[in-house]
This record gives sequence, structure tokens and C-alpha cells, in this order.
Amino acid sequence: MTTTVCSSAEEEWTNAVDKPMDVQTLFSPRGVAVIGASENLSRIGGQPIRALLEAGYAGNIYPVNPKYTEVAGLRCHPQLTDIDGPCDLAIVAVPAESVPESIIACGQAGIRYAIVLSGGFREIGEGGAALEQRLRAAVRVSGVRVIGPNCQGLISTQSRLFAVFGAISHETQMQPGAISMVFQSGGFGFSVMTLCDAQGIQFRHCISTGNEADVTTPELVKALAQDTGTRAIFLYIEGIRDGRALIDAAHAALEAGKPVVVWKGGRTEVGNRAAASHTANMTGQYDLYRSAFRQAGMIEVKSVNEIVDLFKLISTGRQIAGGKLAALAISGGAGVVFADAAIDYGAQLPVFTTRTIEKLRELLPTFASAENPVDITADIFNDISRFTSTLKVVLGDPNVDQLAILLASLPGTLALDVANAIVAAQERSAKPIVLAWSARRARAVGAYDRLETAQIPILPSPERVGMVTAILANYAEAVRAKLPNVIQGSTSDIAHKTPCGQRTLNEIDAKHLLMKFGIPVTNDVVIAAASDPTWDCRDLTYPVVAKIISSAIPHKSDIGGVKVNLSSPEALRRGVEEILDSIRCKATDVQVDGVLVSSMVTDGVEAIVGIVNDAVFGPTVALGLGGVFTEILHDVTYRVAPFTIEVARTMIADLRSRALLEGARGTARCDTEALADTLVRLSNMAWELRDGLVELDINPLFIRPVGKGVIAADCLITLSDGVTPS
Amino acid sequence: MTTTVCSSAEEEWTNAVDKPMDVQTLFSPRGVAVIGASENLSRIGGQPIRALLEAGYAGNIYPVNPKYTEVAGLRCHPQLTDIDGPCDLAIVAVPAESVPESIIACGQAGIRYAIVLSGGFREIGEGGAALEQRLRAAVRVSGVRVIGPNCQGLISTQSRLFAVFGAISHETQMQPGAISMVFQSGGFGFSVMTLCDAQGIQFRHCISTGNEADVTTPELVKALAQDTGTRAIFLYIEGIRDGRALIDAAHAALEAGKPVVVWKGGRTEVGNRAAASHTANMTGQYDLYRSAFRQAGMIEVKSVNEIVDLFKLISTGRQIAGGKLAALAISGGAGVVFADAAIDYGAQLPVFTTRTIEKLRELLPTFASAENPVDITADIFNDISRFTSTLKVVLGDPNVDQLAILLASLPGTLALDVANAIVAAQERSAKPIVLAWSARRARAVGAYDRLETAQIPILPSPERVGMVTAILANYAEAVRAKLPNVIQGSTSDIAHKTPCGQRTLNEIDAKHLLMKFGIPVTNDVVIAAASDPTWDCRDLTYPVVAKIISSAIPHKSDIGGVKVNLSSPEALRRGVEEILDSIRCKATDVQVDGVLVSSMVTDGVEAIVGIVNDAVFGPTVALGLGGVFTEILHDVTYRVAPFTIEVARTMIADLRSRALLEGARGTARCDTEALADTLVRLSNMAWELRDGLVELDINPLFIRPVGKGVIAADCLITLSDGVTPS
Repeated sequence: MTTTVCSSAEEEWTNAVDKPMDVQTLFSPRGVAVIGASENLSRIGGQPIRALLEAGYAGNIYPVNPKYTEVAGLRCHPQLTDIDGPCDLAIVAVPAESVPESIIACGQAGIRYAIVLSGGFREIGEGGAALEQRLRAAVRVSGVRVIGPNCQGLISTQSRLFAVFGAISHETQMQPGAISMVFQSGGFGFSVMTLCDAQGIQFRHCISTGNEADVTTPELVKALAQDTGTRAIFLYIEGIRDGRALIDAAHAALEAGKPVVVWKGGRTEVGNRAAASHTANMTGQYDLYRSAFRQAGMIEVKSVNEIVDLFKLISTGRQIAGGKLAALAISGGAGVVFADAAIDYGAQLPVFTTRTIEKLRELLPTFASAENPVDITADIFNDISRFTSTLKVVLGDPNVDQLAILLASLPGTLALDVANAIVAAQERSAKPIVLAWSARRARAVGAYDRLETAQIPILPSPERVGMVTAILANYAEAVRAKLPNVIQGSTSDIAHKTPCGQRTLNEIDAKHLLMKFGIPVTNDVVIAAASDPTWDCRDLTYPVVAKIISSAIPHKSDIGGVKVNLSSPEALRRGVEEILDSIRCKATDVQVDGVLVSSMVTDGVEAIVGIVNDAVFGPTVALGLGGVFTEILHDVTYRVAPFTIEVARTMIADLRSRALLEGARGTARCDTEALADTLVRLSNMAWELRDGLVELDINPLFIRPVGKGVIAADCLITLSDGVTPS
Repeated sequence: MTTTVCSSAEEEWTNAVDKPMDVQTLFSPRGVAVIGASENLSRIGGQPIRALLEAGYAGNIYPVNPKYTEVAGLRCHPQLTDIDGPCDLAIVAVPAESVPESIIACGQAGIRYAIVLSGGFREIGEGGAALEQRLRAAVRVSGVRVIGPNCQGLISTQSRLFAVFGAISHETQMQPGAISMVFQSGGFGFSVMTLCDAQGIQFRHCISTGNEADVTTPELVKALAQDTGTRAIFLYIEGIRDGRALIDAAHAALEAGKPVVVWKGGRTEVGNRAAASHTANMTGQYDLYRSAFRQAGMIEVKSVNEIVDLFKLISTGRQIAGGKLAALAISGGAGVVFADAAIDYGAQLPVFTTRTIEKLRELLPTFASAENPVDITADIFNDISRFTSTLKVVLGDPNVDQLAILLASLPGTLALDVANAIVAAQERSAKPIVLAWSARRARAVGAYDRLETAQIPILPSPERVGMVTAILANYAEAVRAKLPNVIQGSTSDIAHKTPCGQRTLNEIDAKHLLMKFGIPVTNDVVIAAASDPTWDCRDLTYPVVAKIISSAIPHKSDIGGVKVNLSSPEALRRGVEEILDSIRCKATDVQVDGVLVSSMVTDGVEAIVGIVNDAVFGPTVALGLGGVFTEILHDVTYRVAPFTIEVARTMIADLRSRALLEGARGTARCDTEALADTLVRLSNMAWELRDGLVELDINPLFIRPVGKGVIAADCLITLSDGVTPS
């Protein structure tokens, strides 16, 4: 649970401009200036002009370049001030060093938005970073909002705005859809767009954000959440500066009923290193991102297929009421494969009601099973009315929120009958139906047409249906739980204010601070070096543990500063002597504040809880169980502070090792509610002390049996220099 | 580590016929009889006839049915004996109860193979199971080898043998390829075939095995491993009866250089239950299957896309020499996404040699990174010779076995130049190249044609390239390591011989048995109830542990039969008294053989190792670490016994928690070689005692620091009644 909190004086990453974006103007500008326009339409200054013309952009296009009088049949303007019509957006394709002055000129010409395609800024190192600071200064002075620099541009399909260069500038035939996307790698993002479009997923606004010197991903997400034509949002991010703003924006989208699907590049160490080497953005620790996605109710994906499948389902506009998933299969194998994938992705396949099971037994062949997933067998189609009745029964079950039908490669006229039955069932039910079906189109044209007209999504194989229905079931549960809480503050206001100098509290002071926030700590006795420990500790229950107290010795056991399991006064006396001898020998010149003695906790599961004041996410609470789970298996989860008890419960549910708390191995069930309460208190502590708390680790926190609460047995706190928590 | 070992007298699952299959005759029969032929070509007895005719099967087709004189323009025969031409194969589509007599008739008519499409056997319950026994008797009497019953048939594309019914019987245009497949769900298997074929993967022999009453999946794998036209094998299995035969067959395929790709249906509890409800095959525990796939060097997949991608690469015929994987990306994001996926799938991206890095620095733009994956940036194409040189440098690096090139959506004539450079590089290098490329075909026809002619595989997105190259890298390492050892025996000869009656050894006898096989145990002292424990234990080092000895008390600590951490003779004396008191009070009428005292092991990591005598895999060794890792996280791995030390080392490498052994958390490195040696000894023990050993658990086995070996601190052994290990 380490953290980087030093603010870097040369980079101040608050937004350059504070007023909310008017995206209507950005996405549907009345006119577009192309600064650095090129006669050669295959160059960076020519490609957007060709793309805008080919796509049928209806506004005015104003090439700007003193070298030409005409570009692509359009009048070319020597400078921006020569433009005589309405112009809301500039595409900037001039050398990096001229970009800041172009932005100033945009402001003077009344242009409100600029997309800077030019590279040569922060991504190339120090010289570029200085130039980017000049660009940000130009943004502040001019009030012009800038996308980029070092980006591939922006497409808004409705207004035929193809303000892009590169391969995507040739894809001007793309038609409008209801999915918007924001991505930090232009090449990868636009290739995802191309792949999705080829599979029938159409887009609305697509923005390559580049270095995000001004307009950031969270800001765009917030704007898209309010955009009525956007039904869902896809993000590809490698790193963001303000994690809290992202959570806040995703929350706004959740409130607006718009799923946010996110792909985090750099999940692995190698991937993260690769990202750091090419991106100008801060990358950070994946575990924190993953936890933040959960906290914000975002849907995380790791492949293009997941995106395509999710958006096929989301595009129907049918809402899923909850997480209960059922399947009917005409091939036993398909049902098995579906179930495996759905379970892998965290879904649960509920048991049907008794009434449903009874009715299914009447409808299905005697040897078929009425359990979910149901193997209806191909026999059912001998009498299509039996299939129709089966659909009605299953869709009517209150334990079903979503239905998968797995048809293998069912062909011909039978497929049409089945399609008709399914369409009729969907018309009568609000519960979404999804098909796995692999018949060749040529063998079942009518059935495909019927299903597509009725917007019943069809995926080719059952494991893909299992995966995507499970993901949406989880999302529906997140929506039901109103998972995210309101996020306070933005990271840029918080984390970077912490100065570099630090001091560590000794264990006594650290525990006092915990107590102030209502977190239970062990009943400790502090003994001075000269006193008789057995007298001082007469009220403690044996066995006890003895530890050196010194803020200069954070890792006490490494130098013999801890003795555990001291079972008698005699053992305690000897233990204290040994500790003091060891410290005298191994840590000379260190201030020792005494020896701390406490009764050993023997009836709890060990947890590690802590606070990191993260550079991306601000004050954040961490939870892991036992030493090995956290250190070897990295089974740690995080939430941005402060948060409610509902959020704290989702933290506990996140842990792979949570079975340890549920009374596994014949032990008592642990007091998880007390743990959740402590996490909430820690989150309040993290928030209140955000300006001074660098890092906090309670290790171990014992989670005792139900009713007995939790207790902090040791605690390490690092504060910023000079900060005294009141 | 429980097991089911009771043999069921009514089902004896040795192969019905013992001689190896002559698959040439099965896949290219001179003539095919269709028993139960139907005039109605849409019925089960008509579909195969229509399919054979449509596909252009060149041999004779003999419809057999006394009801008709002609079917589909072919002469129909009243009975098999009326056939007057050569006939090697029968398709059987008569009601279940008539199937056994049809098989007898096939034998009399000299027909060597039969495919039984009819259902109504073991899959429908008891009555069907009895009928299946009659079918097996008919196989033994007639010598006819049977595929099925309850299967969807067999396709052999080269000979145009479409002996199938259902949706697949319409897919008669499918052309021959080099991949063969065997699957236990006809509906799902043939829909996988259809989906793969639509994506350019073509097949050779495809067999739906149904109930496997005679011919089994392992037998077919063994035959396909010897089939010269088969380059790789795909299996979909839900459960097999003889796990050792599968490992043996997969080993034969590995030796023959043919990758075996396997999809196990029923990996999850829900999936497994669904499989059990529709399949007639035994399902069993997934963890054992997964371990067996590793032991046999099989490639496990969980989606159709993985199959398609793998076979695209395998179809090129290029061999990968080892696991070292490199990538060049023109989009930074694509490189990041590739790396994340490759790492997720267990690959490592090696560091280039110094020479390579130096040369790359000369070739690449100054701001590009020369680390793997390399972000070459689109700039490199400004001078295509720099790209050509980059390819040469990277392919020449000894730390590279396979190269991924990530081109995003690169279009047009540039794409053709790049394609030419790649084809030229591939021609000069034996190291396989794979592309991620998402340009629309229409935008780069020439480049696609060029690459496809040269058999350079192209996948649409970088995460798929990461996944599939990582899988093949792992496979190449498995081939290099010659991972599998020779498997002894077949499960059907072993596991089911163990009778049901069982007896448990007490700890002393169990440890004696371990010592016979050279497995180190703690130095124990046995004390009788009346004696003075402190005198008996005078040679032991304190602290000690005391445990009750009784074969009637397998779970000693549950009833106060264990005292740990006794640090003095006095504590020992008191501990022994407490144990005896507790047993007298809680376990009256139980024979007690004394109290066992041993020095506590304090410097090791706890493991659980054991033997299960599994119904599917026979004697098998299990390994897990610590209590929680095994019980809470199910981090357990298995290998079929006996095995070599190389195999034992792969077991240790399988564990997610293996970092515990590597000196994590500041502790000493554990003696993993001693652990591997113990696993080999256990595997020999498992094999030698296979007829009598029901179950063995060493818990805990302490793995001590390097050089200090391992030591078994407790052991539970259950033997079959009446068996005394010599």
C-alpha cells in the first residue's frame, strides 16, 4: 500500500478552463477551419478536408494557409481573421511550436473549440512538455477548449463531422448510431470503431483525446452522459489524472441510465510499462482502477468481442431489471458451455419456481431436465406450440430477468417458426431475450430477417451469450443497488497538495488517532524502560505481546523489537529485557518511547486495512485479508473515500478470499458488519485528513466472531511534515 | 481430496473390442449402408442419404428398409444380406430396441463399422442403460466397431462422407482441411464446425461420439494422431471414462507434432450439473481434467474464437521453437493491449539483446522505445526500408521465437508496401509472424491477397494476437520440455478394482508406510497411557506437539486430541493428561493406541500432499499449499501417477500461491527440489498400491528452507478392506 504523493511544482493539472462544455457546438459546428491546410490531401493538413467533404459535412469548411488560394476546390484563407462565415471549430495541423499562437488566434476569431492533431508535445519528453505548458497557457488566455494535442481527431456521425486523419479518415461511409466513445490511443480506438462498425455496431460521437492537455476523458464522459442521442459510452483509457472526476462522471452516466464500458490498457506490469513509454498520461496502479470501475458501476472489458456483443444487446434499448439469468438450449452441450461462461463472469443461474418446474415437466420430453439451463431438446419443435408455451412459462417466472435461447445451427423453415415464436414472446415480455445461433444466413434468411427486424440480438456461440448476459446481469444488479455514492472533490484539488516531507507516528500516537475516529484498538499498556512490566500489566490477560515504541522504527520485528505469545509474567519480564537489549545493540542513537504491551487477540481473522493518498484517486481505503492473501495473491480491493456502509460491503464482497470470513474451516463467522463500519470510519478519516495523511496501515486488524467486533492490533501512520491532526 | 472408488458391478467399461482401429476404412468406406432408410429425406433415416448424395460421396450408397424398393433414386434393399457390392460402413437409424440386432446383422454381412444415430439408450435412464449393455454385447459378438449411439454422425470431407443428420447435413459444400475434431455433443460440436468453416478453418474428420458405448474419444484421438492428413485435433469433452487413455492418446499426438486443442464442458458446478443431466458420460472433477490437460501437453480453450485463431496459426504449418514472444506496433495502444493479453495468458515478453536494442535505436524515431513490445510508430513507414531493417533485426534476435506485428487499420498502397516487406521477412525467417490488422478488405485488397497467399495469419485485433501467440508460446515450451511422461495402465484396469470396504490406518502405521517409500516423517515418540511422557521424550527438542493415536479418530483435533506448542516437560505432562481426559469423556468405547509426541517444525511452509484413486484418472497425486490456499482458494494441482521429477516440478509451478515457496515476505527459499522428490515418491507409492490405497493425505507436509528437505508431520491413509501393503 505504497503511494506517490509528491506534488510536482512544474505541472499543475487543474482544468485549464472551468465552465462546463457545450458539446452541441463541438459536435455540430456551423463551420470548421483547418489551420495548416494542405493542398496534398494525403497529408495531415489535407486528410481532414477530404474526409469532411467525402462524409458530407454540411457546414462551411475553411482551409487556412497563406501558401494557397484554393484547397480541394475550396477557397483557402491566408489567416483566421479572413474567414467571413460562422466558424465554431478549428482543426489544427501546424508544427507543434506554432500551436499555442494558433489557439490564441482561434480565440480572437471567436472559435470556441480546437482539435490539435499535431504531435511533438509532452509525449516526446522535456522540450515537448514545456511547449504543452505554453499550449495550456494559450487555452487559459483565449478560452478556446482544446482536444489533444497529439490526437487523431473526432468523428460525429450525425453531423458528418469527420475531423480526423489516418486510416479512419477513409471510413466516411459510417452511419450514425447511439454509442459514443472516448479513447486515449487514436490508432487503437479508431480500429475498435472500424471493427465494431463492420459487425453492425454504429457510433455517434468518437473522440481521440491524445495528451488531454485541456479537455479530459472524465469531462467528455460527463458531457456524453447528458447527450440525449447517446445510449451508452465506451472508453479506452491508459491513465487519467483525476480518478475522482472519472468516478463522478461515470456516476452521472449511471444515473442517466447509460452504461459506461471501459477497457483499461496497461493492466499488467508489461502492458503498463509499454503504456508509460508511449502515452503522455499518468498510468498508475491497475488494482485501483479496477476497484474504481466497480465503485462507479462501470463495465470492464478486455476484448473487442465483448464490446461488440455488449453493444448489440444494449442497442436494443431493453432494460434488464436484475441479475437473474435463465437459458433454454436445444443442444445439451450449448447449455453446458453457456453455463460455464456465465458462471466464470460472475452470474448466478437461479432455480425456477416450483410452479415453473411443474409446468416445464408437462411440456418437455420425459428425459429432459427442467433445471436452469434447460435442455429443451430439438424434440420440442415437433410441436411448435410446446415451444411457445415453454417460452411463456420461463419468461413469466419471477426468478428470471433475462433469457438466453441457444439454438445451435437450427436451419430452414423450422428456424422461421422458432423465430416467429421468439418474436411473439419478446413482444409480450419486457425481459430481454438473446440468441446463440450459428445457422448460415443463406440457410435461414427469413428467420434472420424476422429476428433482426424485431431487434432480437443474435450472437454466434453460446459462450459469448453466457459472457455478455452475465456482464449485463451484474450491471443490472449494480444499477439496482445504486452502487456508487457521490464522490467528493476532484483529485486535482486534493492529492497533489501534499508536500514531500513526511514523519511517521509511533504506535501509541497512531492508535490514539484511530480512536478519535471510533476505530477500536487493543487495550495497551506502555511501560518505561526502568519500570517493572509485570506490575504495570497486572490487569492484562495472558498471553501478551510486547513491542518497542519508536517512531524511528517502523518495521519493529526486523530488529527484534517484537515478542509474541508471552504466556506468563516471567515470560513478559524476559521478553521486555530481550527487546531492549536487541534495540540497544541494533538501533543505537534511536529515540525509544518505551515498550507497549497488549493482550494477544486469539479469536479473529487477520486483515490489513489502510489508506493511500493516491496521486490519481486521492484519499482511498484499501482492504486485504491475512498476510499472504495481500502480499502473495494481491487480493486487495480499494474504494475512493469517503463512502457509505453499502459501498464498504461491496469491498468485502470483492475479495476472492472472503470465504475466510464466512466461517470456513469450521471457524466462527466473522463480524463483517463491524469490518464494514470500520471501513466507513477509515474512509471518513481519509477524507478529513486528506491534506496531511500520506499513508496509514492497520496491520493486523483482527476481525472477530460475529458480535465481537474488530480490533486494530498495530498501526503505522505517516503524516506530511508540519501537519498536526486536530 | 475425496474420491469415489467403488466399482459398479453392472457396468464394466473396458473396451468392447481390443484391436486398434483401421480408420482408413472408417473414413473412406467403399460403400455405406443406411439401415432404417426413409423415403422422406427430411427424416433421420433420409437425411444422411440426401447429405451423401449432395456432398458427392463416390462410394456406393445402400438404403436398407423392407418397406421401400427405391429411396432417393437409389435401389432400396430389404435387408443387409441383399447388398451385392462392397460395403464397409453402416449408418443405423432404427428404433433403439432394434439396434443390437442390426449390429449383429452388420457383422454377418461383413460390415466393419457402424454409426448409430438412434437415441434411447443410457441417456434416458435405466431401461436405456440395459439396452446399451445389449448393444455392447452385440459389438463383442459381431466384432463391428460402433460410433454412438445417440450421436449425430461423422463427416470425412476428403471422401465426401457426410454420414450425419441435423443442421450439419445441409453443409455439404464444406471443403477438406487439415484439422480433425471429436466431440461429445453433436449439436454443439457441429455448430463449432460451422462457425469455424465460415471463418476459413477447414476440417478433415469430424466425429460426434454420442454415448461412446464402444469407440471412445481417446481411441479416436490416438487414431487421428497417426493420420497423416491431420495436422491438429480439436476435442469437446464433457466427461470420459478412461482419463489415462486420454493422456496417453494426447501424448501420442504431441510426439507426432500434432497439437490437441481441448474444450472441457462442465468446468463450473452449474455447467457440470447441466452436463450430467444431458450426457451419458461420466463428468468428474474439472480440477483433475485441467491438470491432466497440462500433464499431456494439451491446449485448453474456452471459446470458439480461441479455436478459430489457434487453427489459423496452426494451419500455416510453421513450427514455433520456443516461448519467446515479441511485438512491433504502429499504435502504442495496440502494443499495450497485446501485452496485457499475452501476459494474462501466461506468456513472457523477453528483453531483446543489447545488439538488437542498439540497432533499433538507430532505426526508430528518437522518442520511440526499443523495449518489447516496440512502438515503431507510423513514422517508420516514411521510409519502408527502415521497416524492413527493423523486421530483420527483431527476427534475428535469439530472444525471439515468434513475432506479432500490430498494424491497426493501416490502409491503401502503404499497406501493400508493408505487406510485401512482411512477406519477404517471413520468407527469410523460420520464426512465425502473426498480424493484428483491421483495415477493411476493400481498402487494402492487394495487401490482403499478398499476405494470404504467403499464409501470414491475420487476426482483427491485438488482444486476440496476444492471446493466441501466448497460448502457442506455452505449447512450444511444453513440446520443448517433452512434458508428458509415459502413462502406465488405463483407468478401466485400475480404479474400479478397488472394493468398497475401507479401513483407516492410525498415524504411526501411516507414517511407517510413508517411510517405506522414502518420505521423511517427524521423529515421533509413542507413549503409553501409564508411562511418564517427560522421560520417554527426553531426546526431543521443545516445543513439542502431542496427539492421540487411534485409527478410529481421523479428525483428532475436533475432540481435543491434539495439543501444540508444549514448551516444557511440565506443559507436556499436563497436555498428555488433558488429551487423555478429553478422549475418555468425548470418545468412549474407542480403541486408543497411545499418545504420539514430536518436536514441532517451526521453519517450514505448510503443504498438503495426497493421493486420490480417482474413478476417471486412476491413482493421482495432489498438491496444495497451506490450509487456506487449498480449502478457501482451491489452489490445488494434480498429476496422474507415476511420474518423473520434471513432471513434479510442473506441479509446483502450477500453483498460484507458489511465491510462498520462493522466499516471499522475507522468509527463506523453500526446498522445492525436496518437495518434487517427495511428489515422485508419492506417485510411485500411488502406483504400487493402486489396488489397495483408497486415499492418502499428508497434512501438513512442511517444506523447509533449501537444503533441509521436507517432513511429514501428520498422515491419514485409507486402505481397501483386507489389503495389507507388503
